[in-house]
Amino acid sequence: MNTNARFLARTLAGLGVDTYFQQVVGDNAVRLAEALRLALSRSDLVITTGGLGPTEDDLTKEVVAEVLGLRLVRDPEVARAITCRLEGHRSRPVPQAVAKQSLVPEGALVLPNPVGTAPGFIIPHGPKTLVLLPGPPAELEGVVNTHLLPHLERLAGGSRDGASSRSYLHTTVVKTCGLGEPEVEEAVRDLVSSPNPTVAPLVSVGEVHLRVTGKAADPDEARRITAGMVEKIQERLAANIFGYDDDTIAAACGAVLTRHGLTLSVAESLTGGLVGHLITEVPGSSAYFERGLVVYSNRAKVELLGVDPGLIRRRGAVSREVALAMARGVRDRAGTDIGVALTGIAGPGGATPGKPVGLVFIALCGEAAGGEVCHEYRFTGDRRLVKERSAHRVLALLWLGLRAWELRTSGPA
Amino acid sequence: MNTNARFLARTLAGLGVDTYFQQVVGDNAVRLAEALRLALSRSDLVITTGGLGPTEDDLTKEVVAEVLGLRLVRDPEVARAITCRLEGHRSRPVPQAVAKQSLVPEGALVLPNPVGTAPGFIIPHGPKTLVLLPGPPAELEGVVNTHLLPHLERLAGGSRDGASSRSYLHTTVVKTCGLGEPEVEEAVRDLVSSPNPTVAPLVSVGEVHLRVTGKAADPDEARRITAGMVEKIQERLAANIFGYDDDTIAAACGAVLTRHGLTLSVAESLTGGLVGHLITEVPGSSAYFERGLVVYSNRAKVELLGVDPGLIRRRGAVSREVALAMARGVRDRAGTDIGVALTGIAGPGGATPGKPVGLVFIALCGEAAGGEVCHEYRFTGDRRLVKERSAHRVLALLWLGLRAWELRTSGPA
Repeated sequence: MNTNARFLARTLAGLGVDTYFQQVVGDNAVRLAEALRLALSRSDLVITTGGLGPTEDDLTKEVVAEVLGLRLVRDPEVARAITCRLEGHRSRPVPQAVAKQSLVPEGALVLPNPVGTAPGFIIPHGPKTLVLLPGPPAELEGVVNTHLLPHLERLAGGSRDGASSRSYLHTTVVKTCGLGEPEVEEAVRDLVSSPNPTVAPLVSVGEVHLRVTGKAADPDEARRITAGMVEKIQERLAANIFGYDDDTIAAACGAVLTRHGLTLSVAESLTGGLVGHLITEVPGSSAYFERGLVVYSNRAKVELLGVDPGLIRRRGAVSREVALAMARGVRDRAGTDIGVALTGIAGPGGATPGKPVGLVFIALCGEAAGGEVCHEYRFTGDRRLVKERSAHRVLALLWLGLRAWELRTSGPA
Repeated sequence: MNTNARFLARTLAGLGVDTYFQQVVGDNAVRLAEALRLALSRSDLVITTGGLGPTEDDLTKEVVAEVLGLRLVRDPEVARAITCRLEGHRSRPVPQAVAKQSLVPEGALVLPNPVGTAPGFIIPHGPKTLVLLPGPPAELEGVVNTHLLPHLERLAGGSRDGASSRSYLHTTVVKTCGLGEPEVEEAVRDLVSSPNPTVAPLVSVGEVHLRVTGKAADPDEARRITAGMVEKIQERLAANIFGYDDDTIAAACGAVLTRHGLTLSVAESLTGGLVGHLITEVPGSSAYFERGLVVYSNRAKVELLGVDPGLIRRRGAVSREVALAMARGVRDRAGTDIGVALTGIAGPGGATPGKPVGLVFIALCGEAAGGEVCHEYRFTGDRRLVKERSAHRVLALLWLGLRAWELRTSGPA
């Protein structure tokens, strides 16, 4: 699950450093040493991730010391920092583990870890630089953002090629929902063949993204040509673009809700809380998200949402009518502007004649969400995928509804 | 986010095929061709993932055809399957996209895609074999499990080295909760140095896993020596082992609840539905999970759980007292055996003097969960991490409580 490689490649690209090679190696000293020698033979900057922990198969420092011919020296400062952090978390520091993690390769610069115990290191090696980073993504990102970036900027600035021959990348990801990949591709077909900036479609759950990457000898120029292409895409796909780069569909919904002081409540069945989880990933969501109800049982649907038990008997819990009653129920009881609800069959069990696994009803209720609407889907995939697709579709429908209402009520453009 | 590499390496290991090299390459025809030539020069079996989609930067088939000197031929059978699938999903098939996806490299065996539109391919190339697989993990796993495995078994069986020199790996992951990595490491220190089977600790959110890998000339022998080591680990860590391999802590909780016919309800604040989402990832969870309440506002805590508004005013919504009142409230109102609740500050906002970001109270209520207990945590990390750590800790506490109760009530062993 290499989120680290993506994060590092992106960070380096922003500094005008091209990532040419990536190797993946197991916890094996021989193969690790080989990979390291190969990397040092062909690159100016080599970054390793992982293998700095307290356990016996954390080998990176030991192998690096051997390959570069450096001693490992215990650093009392590092030992103290590790002990403090462990005590702060009420873990009993294990002497051997602290001793191993406080070993520093001779001549290395220590990069403190703001999130965990394993520090990172910068090790100069002739004209080359080796950087060791901890493996857990939060720790790696913490060390990079807090301590490594200023050093990398200096290293990148002093590259032996001279500043003039370097090229800078600037990337913007344009995110759309409500269209399939072929439809997005049709809309921008002529733009996709552009050599610079490049335009590449990426498919995510329920969304299609376009990655626009401009390349130029100057970072501002790279930014400018990227922005020019993003504008062309905006002209063609405006109604479906909910955000850029790290924006999420949940944050896009939150932005519209916040703009108009609207509140939201959610009643979920098959997604089990995933919709609420995605909504509350957004900082500040407490301003508009009043409550979420995970009404997994029919009893909960009746007690918490006032759904008519007769309706559930007649139509079944997975039906258009029950989805709409759930959306109305949660909206009325929570006293929010908008109520959304979904009910369906995540599988693998639960299918009945005419109601297959993947059948999902999504209902929205509230003027700003388009009145009272219910959509029917037949998603494919396993339980996890059906849950994910359902949760992302709810948010896409909510955003499309909110945007349509916003454009309608703000008058003709 | 390379889940595919992990899945493939694991699948191949089970067939006695060692994965020696992994390369990552962007959507660039020149670098893709280079990577392919290098791979074919050093390996018997080369597997590519991704780049089989309908868009212009899906280049894999085109580059493979060029490198191997094969023509791409339109396959009407494949075209029909793609059109049917798109129509079944109410997408309008785009003629150009269908045309591109139905191109098949001459002489290739088509592997139908049970989940998406892009089929996979097996292409014999002299003594070597090239396999092209679609990139989305669900599609890749679908193609591998449904169609590729039998071919791989045959290929592996006919390896030129002869069966006798091959070695098989068997891996079991032992999963623990309630202990930190150093504590687990201390408990199994002498076992970690074993050369075969190897024992490697892996840290996940709130859990420590031990990966045990046995290697032998025969698959049954590999399984046997792995099982022997797993038994030794069980003797030392029995009270903390909740499962193996793909088991989740939510499934482990579900197994105990199901064993004793117990029911569960959840009241979440900062996690926003994530706890309910994890619980309902388990097939069959509807048998014990009655409801989940995402009480993000104080009003929802009062209305839905009967928490005393005076208590919230006096102690604050993030307090031991409110967490316990929430757990009692959800249990009583849902009429379940166990109620669990959590309240805390996910950040980045919301901190007050004495109540920092990351402060979380987790309460459990019900005889089988250990009576009425509340734990206080100070988690580090950003909003996402605090939510994740909190949600996993709830489930770990629930499982530890349930197991202790189960061992207590089943009498002395």
